[in-house]
Amino acid sequence: MDHMFSSRIKSVQPSFIREILKAAENPDVISFAGGLPDKNLFPVKALTQASVRLMEHDGRDILQYGQSEGEYALRSYISEYYRSRQQLNVPVENILITSGSQQGLDLLGKVLIDQNDRIVIESPGYLGAIQALSLYQPEFLPVDIEDNGLDLDGFERSLSTDPKLLYCVPNFQNPTGYSYSEDNKKSIVDLVKDRNMFIVEDDPYGEICFSGENASSFFNWLPDQSILLGTFSKTISPGLRVGWIVAPDEVMKKLIIAKQASDLHTSRLTQGLILEYLLNNDLQAHLDQLSRIYGERCRIMGDLLDQHLGDEIERSHPRGGMFMWVKFAEPIDTMALFDAASSRGVVFVPGQSFYTDSKSSNCMRLNFSCSNQDQLAIGIERLCRAYLESRQADVPGHSKASA
Amino acid sequence: MDHMFSSRIKSVQPSFIREILKAAENPDVISFAGGLPDKNLFPVKALTQASVRLMEHDGRDILQYGQSEGEYALRSYISEYYRSRQQLNVPVENILITSGSQQGLDLLGKVLIDQNDRIVIESPGYLGAIQALSLYQPEFLPVDIEDNGLDLDGFERSLSTDPKLLYCVPNFQNPTGYSYSEDNKKSIVDLVKDRNMFIVEDDPYGEICFSGENASSFFNWLPDQSILLGTFSKTISPGLRVGWIVAPDEVMKKLIIAKQASDLHTSRLTQGLILEYLLNNDLQAHLDQLSRIYGERCRIMGDLLDQHLGDEIERSHPRGGMFMWVKFAEPIDTMALFDAASSRGVVFVPGQSFYTDSKSSNCMRLNFSCSNQDQLAIGIERLCRAYLESRQADVPGHSKASA
Repeated sequence: MDHMFSSRIKSVQPSFIREILKAAENPDVISFAGGLPDKNLFPVKALTQASVRLMEHDGRDILQYGQSEGEYALRSYISEYYRSRQQLNVPVENILITSGSQQGLDLLGKVLIDQNDRIVIESPGYLGAIQALSLYQPEFLPVDIEDNGLDLDGFERSLSTDPKLLYCVPNFQNPTGYSYSEDNKKSIVDLVKDRNMFIVEDDPYGEICFSGENASSFFNWLPDQSILLGTFSKTISPGLRVGWIVAPDEVMKKLIIAKQASDLHTSRLTQGLILEYLLNNDLQAHLDQLSRIYGERCRIMGDLLDQHLGDEIERSHPRGGMFMWVKFAEPIDTMALFDAASSRGVVFVPGQSFYTDSKSSNCMRLNFSCSNQDQLAIGIERLCRAYLESRQADVPGHSKASA
Repeated sequence: MDHMFSSRIKSVQPSFIREILKAAENPDVISFAGGLPDKNLFPVKALTQASVRLMEHDGRDILQYGQSEGEYALRSYISEYYRSRQQLNVPVENILITSGSQQGLDLLGKVLIDQNDRIVIESPGYLGAIQALSLYQPEFLPVDIEDNGLDLDGFERSLSTDPKLLYCVPNFQNPTGYSYSEDNKKSIVDLVKDRNMFIVEDDPYGEICFSGENASSFFNWLPDQSILLGTFSKTISPGLRVGWIVAPDEVMKKLIIAKQASDLHTSRLTQGLILEYLLNNDLQAHLDQLSRIYGERCRIMGDLLDQHLGDEIERSHPRGGMFMWVKFAEPIDTMALFDAASSRGVVFVPGQSFYTDSKSSNCMRLNFSCSNQDQLAIGIERLCRAYLESRQADVPGHSKASA
């Protein structure tokens, strides 16, 4: 059968994360592995009310085929939101509604990437982007991400091969929780300006910001070279699958063709529901609540790690988002640690999953958005025990009291 | 900017149909151009009730991320539906929920098609399939479709180049309204059996059947080589964007990877809504109503055409679906006729749009599902006038009284 498949699909491996998520389905397991928002914080009641209003007022129309670009009213809302929140002038015509921002990545691959085209990607980087773009068989140029942004020397070196785009998550990155500083962004802008390349700025977490501050976007400096990916998945609901992509005129024309070929258009019902919710609810109050709760969980997780493993780890100190990155001082392979942790009832994502070259890693990604205070305490304790025991097992004769 | 785009996207032209649909937005224009079901027949009330129940009972869960395969309960319903309606044994594990069946085509392209792989396609064929598959840069092998199925000689010749798949719409085809006879299908099965190729059977219209009879599927004979595309777009609502794909085990594994990379999963809200509707309503009664009304409109359109243009045309006699195919006896170009008709207030899709080689055509596709009796009468009259006048204009000195 194998000869029947495209070379493109053969180049994509099934994600190890699927296996992890299966382990996490066991209710006795505490999962720091997922990338899910906490479902207990979804605005279910407001969305139920919105759904009743929507079906009663517009049911017949939203059940019909719609435009590939998406619903005009929702695109207008997004345009206005960029203006009021970030002082960005993003015309409605440059916004295309997608089936989650994951689809934005697929459409970009379709429109921009030929086999062996080069893509600069953060290392470690977002797995979903690596997977989506891999289907278009690019050459990935990994550049280290550090706690204030891209490694600029590495980035400059990557430019010598004329990449078509830089893919980045400048706010509360997945998997590290790192954010780009203003200086780091400006240096990137100076390097990219006037080159034939785009910056794809994926920003799913920007509004889950513990400090409330607003970061600037590459679009401020380079609107003609910026492509923005946005989503309602982390702020309202991921199950609805509504995101968007912002792109310059010529790219947008091609994206619309690709969108039409891919699925005609995103569900009008889910687009309508999001808009109805936005027009009748206080989004900012909802975001403030999310940010407060996730921020608290992040702080607790960090404190527990410092307390149990202070000298054994370095970790990120996220100011938003859903993820913390932990690096062990010892050169252990977190893929092996995963098995020990899993048998103790806690799971995470081993660092190896986030590198395009699949190199062994002594890092791991911990998600803090879905665990309450008790779960955090139990989960981190299990994790520490698993780590200390596996270290002991790894080093025969090297005896150490367990924590 | 052009050098920044992929060679794949440069090979896809914007669809002329988009232009046509714009012309059809004028409320004074009668449109036989669209491919829409009649929105007045959507089960809005039942879907509104379903939506309230769904949000109240499962709101929190369906708003969360879900599985790439789709909701298990909906896949089970579809499996059971195949069993009860067509006596097909389609395991739940071989069903993947897609964002409309258009996405099924995109996923197949991703998984099966390398550049220059050969695809047998009906000529004329479904435009959406041509567009979706074009992105994977295959070589199309057009084979004529006739009123009882594929031209078998042409199909046999196409097999000499080892195509990877045959894409076909055996029931009430788009654009022709033709259906494959049992004998035609059996001959195709004999030719395809034991070859390294798939039959992709797209069946959006099978249940909009004026006579009530059930056709057999290629899956009956060749389950290991059959891929089925299905959708709720024509039967319940297109705006929800819920379809599915059935494929053999090995293909399904790859499709799930492609689905995950493309948009993670289809909206759980729209999947849940469809299921809630199906479990609480009499789908068959709804399908009977649709089939009765569309069948009546088809009959009226056909009678009007015969009456006004009897000797000037040959036309299909659809036993289901939404489209009629009209071929003029004279070698007129229906692309030119389109302008004359449009200025008279009626639009259709010129035949040229449905050929992979874009050859000029004296055919046109007429949609009958969205026009009531009055609209049919006025629209066909305008169309006939436009035709007779443009014929007169085309042939100087050849004077003829207009109808």
